[in-house]
This record gives sequence, structure tokens and C-alpha cells, in this order.
Amino acid sequence: MNSDEKKLSRRGIIVGAGKLALGAAGIALVSSGGQNLVSIAEAKETPLPWPYEKIDPEETAKIAYDGWYKAYCSYAVASGILTPLQNKIGGPYSMLPVDGLRLGEGGIVGWGTICGTLLGATVATGFIAPYDVGKQVVNEVMQWYSDTQLPVFTPEKPKAEVRLKSVSNSPLCHISVNKWCQAAGKSFGSPERRDRCARLAADIAAHTVMLLNDWKDGKFVSTLKMPPALYGTTGQHNCNECHTKIPDVIG
Amino acid sequence: MNSDEKKLSRRGIIVGAGKLALGAAGIALVSSGGQNLVSIAEAKETPLPWPYEKIDPEETAKIAYDGWYKAYCSYAVASGILTPLQNKIGGPYSMLPVDGLRLGEGGIVGWGTICGTLLGATVATGFIAPYDVGKQVVNEVMQWYSDTQLPVFTPEKPKAEVRLKSVSNSPLCHISVNKWCQAAGKSFGSPERRDRCARLAADIAAHTVMLLNDWKDGKFVSTLKMPPALYGTTGQHNCNECHTKIPDVIG
Repeated sequence: MNSDEKKLSRRGIIVGAGKLALGAAGIALVSSGGQNLVSIAEAKETPLPWPYEKIDPEETAKIAYDGWYKAYCSYAVASGILTPLQNKIGGPYSMLPVDGLRLGEGGIVGWGTICGTLLGATVATGFIAPYDVGKQVVNEVMQWYSDTQLPVFTPEKPKAEVRLKSVSNSPLCHISVNKWCQAAGKSFGSPERRDRCARLAADIAAHTVMLLNDWKDGKFVSTLKMPPALYGTTGQHNCNECHTKIPDVIG
Repeated sequence: MNSDEKKLSRRGIIVGAGKLALGAAGIALVSSGGQNLVSIAEAKETPLPWPYEKIDPEETAKIAYDGWYKAYCSYAVASGILTPLQNKIGGPYSMLPVDGLRLGEGGIVGWGTICGTLLGATVATGFIAPYDVGKQVVNEVMQWYSDTQLPVFTPEKPKAEVRLKSVSNSPLCHISVNKWCQAAGKSFGSPERRDRCARLAADIAAHTVMLLNDWKDGKFVSTLKMPPALYGTTGQHNCNECHTKIPDVIG
């Protein structure tokens, strides 16, 4: 850091203008010669949850679908949710480079763990909703992902024909993708599988936004228990798919 | 938005001081009456990768261990990596409320999918490293997590005694946690299991930082293939643990 930077970073940023760009505690507005100027110092984060305004799930779905072809699933969903908020609200959303979330692709760099769409939805929700609400929203999205015949979304200009829908019974990329591939008779590398995942990104982004919009309207209610409350440990709901015998629960 | 906010948001922020607080394209520095002032408008994101300076893996480990007891695994690792950068570099890291990443807890709100420590490491790395490097770093961390007798970290003031280490052979929370619980004869709710996960958060955060420091020093090399290059689909490396018979690979 040079001396100018130190001077800046010591002073801190405070905006009179509230939630606008850099968070309530972020930027101090100074009027000088007709110009609005601010003194800068320690840039502070905007406290969570970040301001949320309802966005259009259809717009979200389209952005997510297109986003999949730019940087795959995790980026696609994060972009579908956060880009409209960057446009509508600006900061703090506009400070967040959504590209940074693309490593969730393929269940995290191809490891087939959590579906990247759900990782993107989880991280975006974490900034938008208060913790207790976000937890329930993500729980509902995980369940919907697992239970629903997907994909639902039909793009205006599809890149491939996707006729088959399937139920994953799991939020894991490996299970979800390969059940679809087997049922559709398509390979992982096929244009159809790729478009299935792009459509699914649109579905997850839109569904997450619908729940967040409900919450914004005071209509979001969830009675769904989280897995540890059911099983006494973390897990998904399809035990028998991996376990031929469920291990004894300890303690 | 009121008119002041509009004025601000139209003008944009540009910092002469470069990487300091809000990104190269973010804040324009104006010197006036001995004060450094900036005009504000559309707050822009700092382009990726964000500036990185080597940090101390031991400090990271301690922050992650303590962080686990504040908000669990995903927050713990993200905090262990990002808090030292917030302190050392400031913006853009200081604009990111790390609390937003806590929904990764318990394999994402208790679903036992990706270990939350790995989710935290993935998201943090996504901001720090260029995409191609980040992908390899996360791939290495996932492999190390799966192959290594963990936990390694020993806290100065442990909250519980953790004698047993175990190899998960998987990056999934459910598998990793329950293999440890079975081997240690401890329940999911026990203080020992909790401390095992807190120590593991310290390990993953520190290991990620060591790889990032190597990269900063020009010493990071990875020849590890990502799973799709090996299997033709996304997946982890322990197929037989879930599959009694590997399904035919299609196409």
C-alpha cells in the first residue's frame, strides 16, 4: 500500500444515501462545487441481508439459461438471481463479480457433488435473505429440486431438443445428471444433456426467486424439516439408494 | 431512489489508487483542500481475480477453527481465508459479508452434500485465483480432503478431545462425518464430532491457503485430472461405495 492508499483506507467510506452503492456504513457524501464527492477509507460491507426487491422469475430464468452457456450451472443460477438485482438495486450487488461463483460447475469442478445450480442458489440466497429465512428457502429449493420432474423451462431459442424430464431424488449433480442421461439415452457430452442442465439452471433460479418474492410479500411459509431433524445426522432423503443396509445410528 | 442517490449512481466510482477499496474501475480520486475525495456513481465490481497477498496458514487455521463455533463449516473456511485478506488488503474483500456463506453448513443446510468446508474454500478461491488456477486449486483441495487422515489441526484451547483421524474417501459431508462418527464411536451431536468438524475446517482453510500461496510464489503445479476427464461424467472417485454395479456408461 502506498501512502495515498493508506490515507484512504484509514478514513472509511460513509454514504449518506443509504443502501445505494456501498452500504449504509460505507460512503460519506460531501457536496463541493456542485459535485457530490465522498471521502474514502475502509470500505465496509453492507450488512446482511442485502436489500431485496421482487424480480421477475421469467427474466431470471432466461438469464440463467443463457448464463449456463457462458460459465455453466453455478454461475448461471447466481447470475439469474443477482444480475436483475445488480440492475435494479445496484450496490451492494454490483460489487459482487458473479463470475467468482463459477467453480461450482459440475458439482464443484466436475466432482458431481452438490448440483452447481443449487450452489449458486445457496450463495445468492445467503446475501439476500436473513439467515433463518435463507435456510428455509434453500431447504425448500433442495427438496423441490429432488422431487420435481425437471427440466420445466422451455427456452425461446433452444440450443438442443430436450423432451425427457426426470426426478433426481437427490440434490447431487452426479445422481441427477446420470439418471437423466440413462432415462433419455443421451451421453454426458451430448448437446441434449447440456441443454437439459441449462434449462434446469433456469428452473432452479426461477423457483428460488419465486420463494424470495413470496418472502418479500410476507407469504413465504415453510414447515419442511431439515434432514438432521429427521435423521440425527446430515443427509439427503434417499438412504437406500446408496445404503443396502442403513448403518446403526450411533448415540 | 431519491435524486441524490440517482446523481450518485449515475456518476460511477473510480479510484486512482487502484486495487485499494473498490476496484480499478470503481472510484475516481479527487484531491480537494487536503482531503482525498471521490465522486460516486455506479459502484462497479473489482474485476476478478481480486488482488491476493500471501497469508499465514496458521492464522487462517485459527480463524477457521473459531469461526466454526460462530457459524459452522462453510462460514468457518471462508472466514479463515477472507478475513486475513480483509485486514491486509481491504477492498474488495471488505465489501463481502462472509456471513452470507454460512448456508453451506452441514453439506448445505444439513443435506449432507458437499462438505461445507469445501464450499467455503471453493467460493473464496473463486474470487482470489484466475479461473483456470482456481479450478486446479479446488480440485487439489477436494482430493486432499478425500485422501487425508483428518483432522490434523490441534487447537491451542480445544473445546473437546479429538483423538481419532479418518479418511473420508469422499468430499461429501454425510460420508465424511459418518465415517468419522462410526470409527470414533461418537454421535453426530457429540462435542467430539463438533470439534472434529471445527478442526477439519481449520485444515481445509489452511491447505487452500498453502496452495494459493504456492500459486502466488509461482510454485503451484497440478497434474491432477478432473473427474469428467477420467469417467466421462461428473463424479467422485469411490464409485463402488454407492454402486454395487457401475451403470453402463452411455455414449
